Amino acid sequence: MAHISIIGSGNMGQAISGLVAKGGHTVELVGSADGGTAVTGDIVVLAVPYPKVAEVIAERGAQLAGKVVVDITNPLNFETFDGLTVPADGSAAAEIAAALPGSTVLKAFNTNFAGTLVAGSVGGAPTTVLIAGDDADAKALLAGVVGAAGLRAVDAGGLNRARELESIGFLQITLAAGEKVSWTGGFAVAQ
Amino acid sequence: MAHISIIGSGNMGQAISGLVAKGGHTVELVGSADGGTAVTGDIVVLAVPYPKVAEVIAERGAQLAGKVVVDITNPLNFETFDGLTVPADGSAAAEIAAALPGSTVLKAFNTNFAGTLVAGSVGGAPTTVLIAGDDADAKALLAGVVGAAGLRAVDAGGLNRARELESIGFLQITLAAGEKVSWTGGFAVAQ
Repeated sequence: MAHISIIGSGNMGQAISGLVAKGGHTVELVGSADGGTAVTGDIVVLAVPYPKVAEVIAERGAQLAGKVVVDITNPLNFETFDGLTVPADGSAAAEIAAALPGSTVLKAFNTNFAGTLVAGSVGGAPTTVLIAGDDADAKALLAGVVGAAGLRAVDAGGLNRARELESIGFLQITLAAGEKVSWTGGFAVAQ
Repeated sequence: MAHISIIGSGNMGQAISGLVAKGGHTVELVGSADGGTAVTGDIVVLAVPYPKVAEVIAERGAQLAGKVVVDITNPLNFETFDGLTVPADGSAAAEIAAALPGSTVLKAFNTNFAGTLVAGSVGGAPTTVLIAGDDADAKALLAGVVGAAGLRAVDAGGLNRARELESIGFLQITLAAGEKVSWTGGFAVAQ
């Protein structure tokens, strides 16, 4: 059984917390302001908006060493709503991995709206969590947690594929904001 | 009724040709080597691999002036299979638009596998064609052609969103090549 810590109790933190518990794994949900309490999970999900991640890392970087850290962010430029705040050839995940050299960083959940994680389906198909990362064991561990909740996990490749996952997350948010898809819809993955 | 020319008679050219005809519009399918025959369509689909596009533009650039030109390419680096051959902050569509200043360039179909255009569905949902471009009338014209064939068209934003569409196309190809999804599956868009 995996033990998961989730930092950030917004929509996404709550939704991921729910699916972890649904799959029979244990979860602790920690408010992002609660920096004093050390996280205990083998997997730690950073479920805070991208601009808050640096703060979490500053407070908890040492705690995160040796752990699998899951980046779920979409680093949108919310002023222009027309691009990302990370380098064009990089990703939020790459920035986080550089800031946490002692952790194993995965990108996941950023292409899933919270509602599709709660529902377990999108457009009639099981919700698929795309996971990118350079460590196969860490990806398998997270995929097991996702699968236990009845969702599908797909290995999207190395951590450099986070760039594409963040493009998908960004486009999906613009489509929902423009009412082209609903916040319970968006991209599904057909096998 | 729209009249569409398709340059390139591979899988994608044939699939798009089929859906145009299915929707009751007229289509001419032109081999990419047939440079001598002027295209007659109001919409011209460049259904050749990205490395061939420059050749088509060199031969036909003047013919394409005043027309809606649809770029369907995924400019993968087929040597590394690990990135695109266009600038990280750009897109194939942006390169094509720069090379064809007299044409109205749209990005479309690059996130659809040919099989899903033929079937009209992916994962049980109607196949959705994401269209990016800066000209609303041109997008509406193409969306009408797509819709007439029973597929769904979604306006994905300005031509700068081609960057994200090319990220999706790239990731989808790597997922299919890695047997994570089939060539008749991939990304579906749930409303």
